[in-house]
Amino acid sequence: MTRSFASDNNAPVAPEIMAAIAAANEGDAVGYGHDAWTERAIAKFREHFGEDTAVYFTFNGTGANVTALSCLVKPWEAVLAPATAHLQTDECGAFERFTGSKVIPVATRDGKLRIADVEPYLHGGHDEHFPQPRVVTISQSTEYGDVYHPDELRALCDFAHERGLYVHVDGARISNAAAALGTTPRAITKDLGVDVLTFGGTKNGLMLGEAVCFFNPELARVPMPFARKQGMQLASKMRFIAAQFEALLTGARWLKYASHANAMAQRLLAGVKELPGITITRPVRANAIFAKMERGAIERAQRRFFFYIFDESLPEVRWMTHWATTEREIDAFVEAIWEASSAS
Amino acid sequence: MTRSFASDNNAPVAPEIMAAIAAANEGDAVGYGHDAWTERAIAKFREHFGEDTAVYFTFNGTGANVTALSCLVKPWEAVLAPATAHLQTDECGAFERFTGSKVIPVATRDGKLRIADVEPYLHGGHDEHFPQPRVVTISQSTEYGDVYHPDELRALCDFAHERGLYVHVDGARISNAAAALGTTPRAITKDLGVDVLTFGGTKNGLMLGEAVCFFNPELARVPMPFARKQGMQLASKMRFIAAQFEALLTGARWLKYASHANAMAQRLLAGVKELPGITITRPVRANAIFAKMERGAIERAQRRFFFYIFDESLPEVRWMTHWATTEREIDAFVEAIWEASSAS
Amino acid sequence: MTRSFASDNNAPVAPEIMAAIAAANEGDAVGYGHDAWTERAIAKFREHFGEDTAVYFTFNGTGANVTALSCLVKPWEAVLAPATAHLQTDECGAFERFTGSKVIPVATRDGKLRIADVEPYLHGGHDEHFPQPRVVTISQSTEYGDVYHPDELRALCDFAHERGLYVHVDGARISNAAAALGTTPRAITKDLGVDVLTFGGTKNGLMLGEAVCFFNPELARVPMPFARKQGMQLASKMRFIAAQFEALLTGARWLKYASHANAMAQRLLAGVKELPGITITRPVRANAIFAKMERGAIERAQRRFFFYIFDESLPEVRWMTHWATTEREIDAFVEAIWEASSAS
Amino acid sequence: MTRSFASDNNAPVAPEIMAAIAAANEGDAVGYGHDAWTERAIAKFREHFGEDTAVYFTFNGTGANVTALSCLVKPWEAVLAPATAHLQTDECGAFERFTGSKVIPVATRDGKLRIADVEPYLHGGHDEHFPQPRVVTISQSTEYGDVYHPDELRALCDFAHERGLYVHVDGARISNAAAALGTTPRAITKDLGVDVLTFGGTKNGLMLGEAVCFFNPELARVPMPFARKQGMQLASKMRFIAAQFEALLTGARWLKYASHANAMAQRLLAGVKELPGITITRPVRANAIFAKMERGAIERAQRRFFFYIFDESLPEVRWMTHWATTEREIDAFVEAIWEASSAS
Repeated sequence: MTRSFASDNNAPVAPEIMAAIAAANEGDAVGYGHDAWTERAIAKFREHFGEDTAVYFTFNGTGANVTALSCLVKPWEAVLAPATAHLQTDECGAFERFTGSKVIPVATRDGKLRIADVEPYLHGGHDEHFPQPRVVTISQSTEYGDVYHPDELRALCDFAHERGLYVHVDGARISNAAAALGTTPRAITKDLGVDVLTFGGTKNGLMLGEAVCFFNPELARVPMPFARKQGMQLASKMRFIAAQFEALLTGARWLKYASHANAMAQRLLAGVKELPGITITRPVRANAIFAKMERGAIERAQRRFFFYIFDESLPEVRWMTHWATTEREIDAFVEAIWEASSAS
Repeated sequence: MTRSFASDNNAPVAPEIMAAIAAANEGDAVGYGHDAWTERAIAKFREHFGEDTAVYFTFNGTGANVTALSCLVKPWEAVLAPATAHLQTDECGAFERFTGSKVIPVATRDGKLRIADVEPYLHGGHDEHFPQPRVVTISQSTEYGDVYHPDELRALCDFAHERGLYVHVDGARISNAAAALGTTPRAITKDLGVDVLTFGGTKNGLMLGEAVCFFNPELARVPMPFARKQGMQLASKMRFIAAQFEALLTGARWLKYASHANAMAQRLLAGVKELPGITITRPVRANAIFAKMERGAIERAQRRFFFYIFDESLPEVRWMTHWATTEREIDAFVEAIWEASSAS
Repeated sequence: MTRSFASDNNAPVAPEIMAAIAAANEGDAVGYGHDAWTERAIAKFREHFGEDTAVYFTFNGTGANVTALSCLVKPWEAVLAPATAHLQTDECGAFERFTGSKVIPVATRDGKLRIADVEPYLHGGHDEHFPQPRVVTISQSTEYGDVYHPDELRALCDFAHERGLYVHVDGARISNAAAALGTTPRAITKDLGVDVLTFGGTKNGLMLGEAVCFFNPELARVPMPFARKQGMQLASKMRFIAAQFEALLTGARWLKYASHANAMAQRLLAGVKELPGITITRPVRANAIFAKMERGAIERAQRRFFFYIFDESLPEVRWMTHWATTEREIDAFVEAIWEASSAS
Repeated sequence: MTRSFASDNNAPVAPEIMAAIAAANEGDAVGYGHDAWTERAIAKFREHFGEDTAVYFTFNGTGANVTALSCLVKPWEAVLAPATAHLQTDECGAFERFTGSKVIPVATRDGKLRIADVEPYLHGGHDEHFPQPRVVTISQSTEYGDVYHPDELRALCDFAHERGLYVHVDGARISNAAAALGTTPRAITKDLGVDVLTFGGTKNGLMLGEAVCFFNPELARVPMPFARKQGMQLASKMRFIAAQFEALLTGARWLKYASHANAMAQRLLAGVKELPGITITRPVRANAIFAKMERGAIERAQRRFFFYIFDESLPEVRWMTHWATTEREIDAFVEAIWEASSAS
């Protein structure tokens, strides 16, 4: 197909990642992560996040988020999430089904969870009639392509910890966020007080694979191996996931892929923001652009490029870029949008 | 590491499979299975199993078994399985956690479930005090390296259907069973009355991936897409799983890999069965050999080759071969066993 | 204790109900509902709601709501409820734990769910990434002491059915609602299109017991007996619950108790609504009054009578009346409120 | 109906218990156990079992067993139970559905779990592929009407604790066991090392109600209130359950009812054991008798008295006595059995 602007998971595998997979295909290896690739990949994570980081690879983002969160809650404890969180809107209740616990969706202004949003949910009393909030989860970058400024996230972490809550970050696009902020994944998670991070691979050049990083390994030590197995996320030939992460965390490839994706989003923004009939609806900080267009224009554009309508009622579209999107493709897409918008 | 005899999941990826993965890495593709590779792989399964086959790819065997079975039971219905089933002994209760239902482990003589084993469990009454048996699941080849003869399995299927039960086959090694019986996977599943098959990939040359095949697609139509998503088994970049299965089912590679693994097991059997101090404990039909050895001999052999003790109390070891095991490796292993047995 | 205004579940058992319990204590009876009392009680429900009503007794309201709803959803289907629903706020996630499904809390203006509130939640697409809404549940009377007018509920039922959703009514106080509307429980549930009703007993004079009424018995036939057993709601000596319901539905006792409770709420309303420092915050239709008072006044009043602060932030109190509340007690309570308000 | 010999849950409520219920019906009481009756009932339990006992009332036996066990296991931990346990055979998988964990049914000679039965299940390895055994549960008296001798149970407790397992006793008939052994419930549970006891009420003269007793309150402190609520076992008008237990534990009524039931079983045994065509199949220690009879004789006897066939294949019947069974009824029943056996 021509380049897709539908999702960063429409992308192929980055060549260095594919090379790492091929290189891992040497002889036999003990299963379930007791292999040299997994050891090295975990070591790479510890280089980035510090020695006291416990890392568990999973197959996909839902698997990572759900097994990670399951280590933090009892069945009568709840997770506070923005109502727009992937966990709430795109994981089909996998969390509830696996844990028996509740996600409590919290309305937000813009997909970013703030102390004032969370605070009212902490007055539910401490007796057994209410699921007790135990975790705050946020997405960095957000589902709307924005990023939390470190100060915002630190404040949220401090608040959560004061109230006895853990903080989990769904980092399906943590690399895009770090690239947008000109810093490292560690600086915008662990160093701010985040307890557990889902470090995304699939949307940043990998074939598949996410890495759950516990910055307090004790939270994971007993429950996580079982949660990963019961959550059907334990790969027998784990070296092929581990090798991808080793490659991603080597030579700053995580940053190369993500900053390229972000740059392509900026190029796209620059190309479309002045077009008549296009209204950019949200800040563009990572690799997603949200825009309102006339419905006919959307249909015409979709005949040439693949992307989704995000909110049918407006309508609002979402365009995503990724490591493999090229400048030429952006320019062709801008032209298509321009033509679609002008044709009405 | 030197060749492992611990499990067929210690194997690397077969070269034709790896080539198919690389070939799939072309441009963008729509996520979650709406891509050309998935379409072609499903078409391949239909060539093998008939047009009326619904196919769903999952990440791993536990994921395949659990999501498949979840489509067949209500939370108050039970699955009858040999007490030795992978589902019961090696999947950490993932079925119970995902479904809330019960696996009822049934004692068997040799890991093969027979009508007489199952029959007593069908008298539990039909009222609400007992989980109602709804599915019989068996492994083909069995966890002990044996295979069900088609007549045995047909009789079990007929019996199950008469009693209103479905039959699921955990076919993590269905190709080895078909190769052992000199027939096709279809001939030993669908054609005998099996309702749902977990068609194994990971243990027969793939990097990862299993395919749940429903021979009555109506059983899957509504529940399976949701079960796969909630079961955290829905790959976003599904083409990379699908492409492997397309390759496996093309040019009879499933048979090539499996029959090679079986042949290596026979070569190993021939090499060790007469050795002093070695007692072969079970029929060798597929790619596993079980043997009793003196404990010291086991330890000596393990210094040179990697394998597991299966039953510590005897002790009994399990040796597995796979698509990549070579004749030379078998011979070296036989020599190591011989030396280990003789050294005492 | 002096009369409580905290909850209608603080009430004793009505004398006719207690007499029915005592009368049921004659000789042996087959367990689990296969007894004459249960048969007669179910017949009473069918007198009230029609022959085609399937009735299942449970121990408590959470048990009734959760087992009833579990018959209507698959684990990937969701229940839309007012964010203020007892199911969402006071049942500690029992629904999620039992079913693995999700309650989706819907913001409302006043605790009453309207079509416009629900409608946006039905656009989530029909693929496997979203839990599919399948049930709308409402409370009648509402958690705020209001009642749905029959036209409102009929419109909601019609809308729900058009969209393929079931309607469940949490009728913990269905008798209070019927009394308030001057009609029968049937007229405000089944006759408007409600599919399943939790008919409350505990809060209307019973010792314990709720009755789940399915107006389409086919919805319950297979799942409900198992759901009730697995939901730990199947009483072995069921006659003692059934006998209470038989008594409640005989001689319009349900109406006598509920209309008395409602009348006491009106008397209380009349007594306090003009008091300085008291603001009645919600319509008083059933047996609950909500009011804002100065915090010191609340504390003074609580020294003499037991009641709860409902919303600490305002603060807003809730006062409830029940079958046993007397006019003299209301008058004494009004006086206490008056003194507490005046003392500051 | 004429006296039932089907189950002790067919019995009426003992008069002293009914009087206690009536006496509790005085005025209002705070809900959910914050009342004086609950306080006094818990104090009674502490008189019997020691001050450091945490007591939680539930509606029924399944609710008691499941919520109690849920406090002892994580979802990846398993409960070892005799294959004949009520938990395994008569609670419809409620444990699995509520906890996601597994009951592992262990074959026994006679329904009594012994160290040698349990021991093989403790070698499953400690990695994440196996649900980890964490609890041993037994029934006292057993499902077959036998009792564990204190030495047997102490040995099992010691063994369990050495291996890091908890011991739970399903004491639906703990009073019958204590009566049979001529001792107290405490002497055959807490004093032997039992960690958690389900103290049965329903089968010993109560209308409904079981009491979960934790002898290490710390095991219950956080999880049990939530488990009871989520398990839909929290009574709002709890005083009516508590008052029954207060009465049961006062004046040794627990013993009076149970020893009478046991004595009636002995009288029945004496009456039938020499009858031609009757074979008593199990030791009669508590209030159940198991016997083999010719099938026609069973049918004839069932025309006059209500009882169940326990094992259709033999056939074997179960006869149960209870607090209200009279000597005259036993004698009439013996005569009926005699006539039914002689008539063939």
